Amino acid sequence: MNASAAMPPFFALRPEAEQAPTSGIVDVFNYGRNREGLIPLWVGEGDLPTPPFICDAATRSLAAGETFYTYQRGIPELRQTLSRYHERIYGQPVDPERFFVTSGGMPAMQVAMRMVSGPGDEVLISTPAWPNFAGAITVAGAQPVAVPMVFGQNGWNLDFDRLEKAVTPRTRALLINSPANPTGWTATFSDLRALLDLARRHGLWIIADEIYGRFVYDPALQVEGRAPSFRDVMASEDRILFVQTFSKNWAMTGWRLGWLEAPPALGQVIENLVQYQSSGTPVFIQRGGVAALEQGEEFVAHQIDRARTGREIVGRLSQTDFVELPPPSGAFYAFLKIKSQKTSKEIAMGLIEEANVGLAPGSAFGEAGEGYLRLCYARKASDLEEAVRRIGEALPRVVG
Amino acid sequence: MNASAAMPPFFALRPEAEQAPTSGIVDVFNYGRNREGLIPLWVGEGDLPTPPFICDAATRSLAAGETFYTYQRGIPELRQTLSRYHERIYGQPVDPERFFVTSGGMPAMQVAMRMVSGPGDEVLISTPAWPNFAGAITVAGAQPVAVPMVFGQNGWNLDFDRLEKAVTPRTRALLINSPANPTGWTATFSDLRALLDLARRHGLWIIADEIYGRFVYDPALQVEGRAPSFRDVMASEDRILFVQTFSKNWAMTGWRLGWLEAPPALGQVIENLVQYQSSGTPVFIQRGGVAALEQGEEFVAHQIDRARTGREIVGRLSQTDFVELPPPSGAFYAFLKIKSQKTSKEIAMGLIEEANVGLAPGSAFGEAGEGYLRLCYARKASDLEEAVRRIGEALPRVVG
Repeated sequence: MNASAAMPPFFALRPEAEQAPTSGIVDVFNYGRNREGLIPLWVGEGDLPTPPFICDAATRSLAAGETFYTYQRGIPELRQTLSRYHERIYGQPVDPERFFVTSGGMPAMQVAMRMVSGPGDEVLISTPAWPNFAGAITVAGAQPVAVPMVFGQNGWNLDFDRLEKAVTPRTRALLINSPANPTGWTATFSDLRALLDLARRHGLWIIADEIYGRFVYDPALQVEGRAPSFRDVMASEDRILFVQTFSKNWAMTGWRLGWLEAPPALGQVIENLVQYQSSGTPVFIQRGGVAALEQGEEFVAHQIDRARTGREIVGRLSQTDFVELPPPSGAFYAFLKIKSQKTSKEIAMGLIEEANVGLAPGSAFGEAGEGYLRLCYARKASDLEEAVRRIGEALPRVVG
Repeated sequence: MNASAAMPPFFALRPEAEQAPTSGIVDVFNYGRNREGLIPLWVGEGDLPTPPFICDAATRSLAAGETFYTYQRGIPELRQTLSRYHERIYGQPVDPERFFVTSGGMPAMQVAMRMVSGPGDEVLISTPAWPNFAGAITVAGAQPVAVPMVFGQNGWNLDFDRLEKAVTPRTRALLINSPANPTGWTATFSDLRALLDLARRHGLWIIADEIYGRFVYDPALQVEGRAPSFRDVMASEDRILFVQTFSKNWAMTGWRLGWLEAPPALGQVIENLVQYQSSGTPVFIQRGGVAALEQGEEFVAHQIDRARTGREIVGRLSQTDFVELPPPSGAFYAFLKIKSQKTSKEIAMGLIEEANVGLAPGSAFGEAGEGYLRLCYARKASDLEEAVRRIGEALPRVVG
């Protein structure tokens, strides 16, 4: 739905606001949200609440009266902890001055987009993609340009020719999400080098969303248990902005805590943009982030194990008649290709009715997603077993 | 400082980002922040931490596992509680659908600005004003237009002729903050009617910042203990957006919790903009907001009493040789006019050196604020007594 359709002319608003797209998942979600027994696999979050050691850190901070305004760049302790975390996971020291705490991954994305794009600019997105990328670009007044990936027997792949051809004099940035939501595509080192080369040749910024970087299943893609990263191939002077979040690794979706990693030279601009966006992130929430980074490895490992099991369970859907699903390399989504003449929204609605399972229609992730359904498998095995059983049983009726 | 001055050309960013102004308070703050015994009166927050009954509500929510994604418009319970709160304070029922929870007053302002302004547009601000207004307008790509108020023996007043003359075909909105930061100016009913009339005649939006509405000292201006509000004079179809925060009334500056009040017809657009800004406010923080509204009246009364006492204490500075200070009508700031040839920043620096007291330079609030210093008196009496003593003692040396 285009929000402006319902707007009385008296309230005419700016195009950047009116054209901000409504989530394509919401209609389906609203249709099914109150159904008893529905298994909700439509949203990008797991079923585990935040572990107690993280909640306790926030509680202690609140009790200690840490309820005042704070640093726009984040508390020094969290920025230093981020630096140590990155050294541990990526094997190289990183200057704490590169980290800017944000109130979630989305605000990090908004700040990144505000810095590099505006009216008259284009930003390339490899699709199917998380719809909020296009949303953030639109709100900044710029034009999102979808560049479809190619789907084949081995899953999704970048189409470098198409990416190169999509670059115009107006192109300012290239948004790369690896491992990817919703497809599970995970860039190889060779992909990352080619993307960086393309960005360098055309003077583009890269906005790197590597938030699922620790969820990677294909052994050929694993580097010390995580996915290849732009930080493995970049030089320090490259124009790369990393948007990151605590949401997925540490089950903190509802906390709204993330970070932007950027060249320290951009520090004052980022500080100003944070000032006029969130005016900083609550200290007690940042204390939760410190606990997550310092004491969270066991929990992250548990999350990854659960996702790996979930991926195997939902992988069985590929053995049914109406689903095509090459094993996703990373993230925690199965992007099911459905053999049907119906739209993905119709099928998602049908599965609510017939299977009492909530999936996200592929059309929510751009035109390239039509014909697919997204299933989040970061969930307990028994729910996923039951969902697979119900979907398999209902699909023959739903697709026809 | 203009942030772009230090930026290597390689990192050329969008003007909306580079031109986002750096806070004029920060230099002074950084100069004095680590001084032992400094009395900090430079920031717009009191000295009380959030009261325990609010922290406890958040703690209980965290312990109950409310750590997942939530409604972009805010949890229904908080929106309903906001409706009841407004009925209690303003004496008229308000549809809960008018309320949109935001992660602070600043995010509410950012959403409001994104809806009504962008490149090619102008927004009028009556100055001296909170610098974040101009910041939010700049980040939206629009042009802030300062319209200075008039300072006289009775304090600050709007200059309606000047406001009217500042309207151009590009003007989209009028930003009114009453009671005002930093001046304490508080609109009368007559002022509000005249402003509304001006906005109606020119088809402008009004962005109403009434966050200090409960801090009003002049009995002639009090309506049931609060300041006159646009809601007293508006019709339901008027184009007014109210930006609000829990920060001041309930000592929750560090929580980042506020709300935008808008015509329900804008609901879908606001929901979309919140999606691409914060993606919603943590549920456990919203639970704190519910507790504040439902159980907070005693605390708010205590805060107002303290501010009233503080205002009397700092009012004594008007009896010294170098200060002019008509009693501020509302909010919790004294905006001291200093008789000196020095800049307000020089004087603020001098007072750190000579009095160990932190005040904000008036120049941080726009050109119209040069020659003034802002002092926040939402603080315990003993600190304010000591600050007044030290300032009075040091000023003769500092101004010369």
